Amino acid sequence: MSGQKLRSMIVSEILKNVRDAEISSIEFEGPEIAIYVKNPQWILDGEEKIKELAKQLRKRMVIRTDNKVRKTKEATIQYIMENTPEDAGITPSDIQFDEVLGEVRVFADKPGKLLGKGKQFRNQVLANTGWRLEVQRKSPLISKTLASVLDLYIRASAERKKALREIGERVYRDMLVGPRNIRVIGLGSFGEVGRSSILLDTGESKILLDAGFAQSGYSVDAYPHFDAPEFRLEDLDAIVISHAHMDHMGLLPILYKYGYRGPAYMTPPTRDITVLMLKDFMDLFVREGKEPPFTMKDINTMLTRTITVNYNVVTDLSPDAKLTFSDAGHILGSALTHIHIGQGLFNLLYTGDIKYYKMKDETNTTRLQPPANTEFHRVEALIMETTYGGTETATREEAEAQLFELIKKVYERKGKILIPVMAVGRAQDIMVLINKALQDKKIPEMPIYIDGLIYEVTAIYTSYPELLAKPIRDEILHNDNNPFIGPNMVFVNDSSKRDEAIYSEGPAIIISTSGMMTGGPILEYFKNLADNQNNALVFVSYQAAGTLGRKIIEGEKEIQMMDGNQIKTIKVNLEVQRIEGFSGHANRSELQGFLRSLTPKPRIIILNHGEPSQTISFGLLIKQRWDKLGFESTPEVIYPENLEAIRLFPRNVKLHSMLNIFQQTQS
Amino acid sequence: MSGQKLRSMIVSEILKNVRDAEISSIEFEGPEIAIYVKNPQWILDGEEKIKELAKQLRKRMVIRTDNKVRKTKEATIQYIMENTPEDAGITPSDIQFDEVLGEVRVFADKPGKLLGKGKQFRNQVLANTGWRLEVQRKSPLISKTLASVLDLYIRASAERKKALREIGERVYRDMLVGPRNIRVIGLGSFGEVGRSSILLDTGESKILLDAGFAQSGYSVDAYPHFDAPEFRLEDLDAIVISHAHMDHMGLLPILYKYGYRGPAYMTPPTRDITVLMLKDFMDLFVREGKEPPFTMKDINTMLTRTITVNYNVVTDLSPDAKLTFSDAGHILGSALTHIHIGQGLFNLLYTGDIKYYKMKDETNTTRLQPPANTEFHRVEALIMETTYGGTETATREEAEAQLFELIKKVYERKGKILIPVMAVGRAQDIMVLINKALQDKKIPEMPIYIDGLIYEVTAIYTSYPELLAKPIRDEILHNDNNPFIGPNMVFVNDSSKRDEAIYSEGPAIIISTSGMMTGGPILEYFKNLADNQNNALVFVSYQAAGTLGRKIIEGEKEIQMMDGNQIKTIKVNLEVQRIEGFSGHANRSELQGFLRSLTPKPRIIILNHGEPSQTISFGLLIKQRWDKLGFESTPEVIYPENLEAIRLFPRNVKLHSMLNIFQQTQS
Repeated sequence: MSGQKLRSMIVSEILKNVRDAEISSIEFEGPEIAIYVKNPQWILDGEEKIKELAKQLRKRMVIRTDNKVRKTKEATIQYIMENTPEDAGITPSDIQFDEVLGEVRVFADKPGKLLGKGKQFRNQVLANTGWRLEVQRKSPLISKTLASVLDLYIRASAERKKALREIGERVYRDMLVGPRNIRVIGLGSFGEVGRSSILLDTGESKILLDAGFAQSGYSVDAYPHFDAPEFRLEDLDAIVISHAHMDHMGLLPILYKYGYRGPAYMTPPTRDITVLMLKDFMDLFVREGKEPPFTMKDINTMLTRTITVNYNVVTDLSPDAKLTFSDAGHILGSALTHIHIGQGLFNLLYTGDIKYYKMKDETNTTRLQPPANTEFHRVEALIMETTYGGTETATREEAEAQLFELIKKVYERKGKILIPVMAVGRAQDIMVLINKALQDKKIPEMPIYIDGLIYEVTAIYTSYPELLAKPIRDEILHNDNNPFIGPNMVFVNDSSKRDEAIYSEGPAIIISTSGMMTGGPILEYFKNLADNQNNALVFVSYQAAGTLGRKIIEGEKEIQMMDGNQIKTIKVNLEVQRIEGFSGHANRSELQGFLRSLTPKPRIIILNHGEPSQTISFGLLIKQRWDKLGFESTPEVIYPENLEAIRLFPRNVKLHSMLNIFQQTQS
Repeated sequence: MSGQKLRSMIVSEILKNVRDAEISSIEFEGPEIAIYVKNPQWILDGEEKIKELAKQLRKRMVIRTDNKVRKTKEATIQYIMENTPEDAGITPSDIQFDEVLGEVRVFADKPGKLLGKGKQFRNQVLANTGWRLEVQRKSPLISKTLASVLDLYIRASAERKKALREIGERVYRDMLVGPRNIRVIGLGSFGEVGRSSILLDTGESKILLDAGFAQSGYSVDAYPHFDAPEFRLEDLDAIVISHAHMDHMGLLPILYKYGYRGPAYMTPPTRDITVLMLKDFMDLFVREGKEPPFTMKDINTMLTRTITVNYNVVTDLSPDAKLTFSDAGHILGSALTHIHIGQGLFNLLYTGDIKYYKMKDETNTTRLQPPANTEFHRVEALIMETTYGGTETATREEAEAQLFELIKKVYERKGKILIPVMAVGRAQDIMVLINKALQDKKIPEMPIYIDGLIYEVTAIYTSYPELLAKPIRDEILHNDNNPFIGPNMVFVNDSSKRDEAIYSEGPAIIISTSGMMTGGPILEYFKNLADNQNNALVFVSYQAAGTLGRKIIEGEKEIQMMDGNQIKTIKVNLEVQRIEGFSGHANRSELQGFLRSLTPKPRIIILNHGEPSQTISFGLLIKQRWDKLGFESTPEVIYPENLEAIRLFPRNVKLHSMLNIFQQTQS
């Protein structure tokens, strides 16, 4: 069906079914269909109809009101305050208005108490005030980032509405050629770790999966191959971001800077953390007196066009592609990206970074994220990360024991334990773990200094407890016990606290960014603590080639570092340990476990995001154990490098099934 | 060096070295540097200097004169006639002038006699008349095509000069980014036979290798994937055509029709046969009352921008790519395409279609073409055809014996022998073979009818005897014996001759197009001769999937065909034979032989132009026998399908060497 016809059909279906609502207009706002009504009272009886219609049309729908029928802000605040239970924990200052979209946003300590069961209260607010209610959890930690994202949303609301309508025009455009010759082209992270970026070309639409830069540090060489002739910003329908690590989203503002004006899809926490990380990255340049590669203007342009999508919600990206996110288990908001192409023609699943670990005691897990989702309607091709495709690591339980042992040992000798972590994911994981261990007296009492961007990120974590693993979620939601906060925790926010962490007598734990020691306050701690053999440096995550972390792991004993304007030689006398069971990446067993559980099984598996030895090792494993992994026949396993294109559909079945049979009889 | 600088340097070197010639201008005409002089006498002493300079600058140079110093046509004709030996066989009507380029073209029965040794006579003509002499062999068969190509060249000379200068501007442009991320993308003929087309992208330049359509018949589905986003006509630097079969060059005028205005490089016979084939193809549509997909205008645009390149001449395609053709042994003018990228950075060899057969008695071969060239300076990657990669065929000698046997048998029973052939290559091969066999009394006397485009193509063959295998070349050049012409040969050029071939009593041999019975007069013969079991149909070349020839080979006994406006059922009662040793394609042994002789050995071998079973079978052979083929280590063997991109340089050595080792230990 053509886009024009499709839109007419949708509009006439809505007009037919939603007559009593007194529709003033129907707008395509990004992938959503917004129905503007003059009779908001209608929602009280009409909601079921809308749900039914959305299901029938397979579209996301939202009811908004004509601004003429909205009550004043004062009257609306009054209505909300009067109708909210005391224990929801809101005050009038927790209520914000978006006049362009007609939304009233309420921050509550307990959103559940405010909303009650179902959408009842939301509908009542709409019916009685004309404002559409959005409720958000108030974080127990104050996040400047969250506040600024929301502030921008309200300030740039008119621009955002305009952008969404432009995007809606494109999403619901006429189909030009339809899906055909579906291809993926690796622009980055193929045959390597870092700078994740994949171009999906369905023939009808072009979708960029991730836009990161290499972890070895920012430079144009660290970009994915955006200069590939098949990649053109003006032809791009959508960018989809799997999660908020710089090697997956760090170049998003650059793409807006160079003219991209389409949508960026991501989960809500990914948006929040992304903004935080990008601002911090930009600030780093400013602090060093350099010009940052992008500015707040670019971040704002990006935010104006960012469309958040929750897990398991189907969203139209273009006339022939639909997106569904589900949990990847890697960090807060990390997503498996499922793209459905055509009407049942082809389905691609991209893992991004995944974790698939189930602790022995799942009812009392210390892991923040649940394991990755493995249930899908259809999956023909899978693009899968293989960071640890060839590596078995200790179990989480062993890693915890090892860490506690080390902490105790260093405590005995009154040393300090330095733990470099990425601000997102590993930081929160280790914080919660150590906090719990202290409470449970598995380690002795001592201060835990937390430095870098971790505080802000943790604030975002605490805003989305519903996305955390069940035991932790329950602690927060039902026991009012926030595992991110503890009496021994010191959030370092000025140099005096940092000096205290460095120079105070006696043992301490210092958790600081960056995770691969390519920058951040960890360098300050390292410079000052490296020569004392009582101290310890413990790596709990992957160290990419070319990073300082990698050098130290590989045994370098003298490190040249800048100290002010001087080059200083740092002697590495402190104990260096590497504990691998904490990784946010699935190890070899977990990747196997993920494939074993994955339903249905893909015919084509493209391996990326790994050093070649890891990637190939895992590919061989699939070829050897496909039957034990539950495949009915051996899947195609492909190891492209960057800039290589793979055609997924239609695939030359003769060619590839013969090659596959050959590979199989050989293994 | 920048293009601007390079051009200034070239100009100043020329000015310095060629002072006495009184240069009026220096022009970049396509890949050639044309030096326009006012003192043509200078050439008599100066030629060595120019040769030296061309060698030093590694550029193709040509001396032309300022038109003010050229003598009149009459005086020039007189000079040439007076200074030409009698036995060169020229008359004043064999002399043509191109006033734009200042060239005088002379057709001679014996060009050698006209030119004498070296370039002496050419220089004398230039010095004494101001016209640049070009000599061409007069074909013993009159070719309308050759005449029309030459006619067009002269009529469109001004337009051609303009086009060449535009092309020259682009060839000698500034380098923009330099060669990097060298890739090949298969647009057609990967995982299949037909529609050959490969995009070579060096980062700096984009070169299309071949532009054919599928052999199953013309339609848009038969096009290569010109809709790939990395393929843009406006970005293309050059099209290089390997040989004059429709599945390698049939879409060239379409590309000009849709706006391409760059150069097309091919050997001189490839140009001539291409024009012939394209005109014939166009006429077919006209005869059937349909609109042809391109017109003479497009062919003319193409010809205006066609640059012929002889074997073993290095030609600049762009700032970072140089082309060298050498003999592919497949048909007249067929070329191996060698592209040198950067200054020694990377070398790609593309076989096009190859033949690599050495007859037992090489001094008296019946094969028209010598075996493919195998000697190169450097080759890092090879794109190789595998039409018969998995097939051993009888030897040429066995095939000949088999054919003669069949001919004698059918002669005995007074039947007619129908041999479908492609107009180019197999036709001439079989003609010469049968002609010789008749002369040598290996087969009985009977008429040989030759129908279709074969006559015109053969005329072109006889114009380039120097490109044929040595024994045949010697026959023509030294013994005045043209093996293409014999007393029993009847060239069918009207319906009465065709009726004679069909209805006359007694045995006959009918050689006719098309080779896969997808069209052409062969269908007329087949319709009328198929139901008589005394007759025989003998296939001497590859029958692509989807063609009538393939159906008959596969045993179909009833064929529905159009007869006028009626559908008629043709009973296949005649004897059907398939003799494979005549193929213009190297069989499995020959492909092996080619690889064994190939010097130096490539690290990467990309297999194309084969049905998957053939291609894979040959790939496995390389993997198993690499050491016996003379490789020092196992090369990478890659089987892309259409629309897949392979990155050649820089290659992820870690990834591919590990994969390679794995594949090796498995085989």
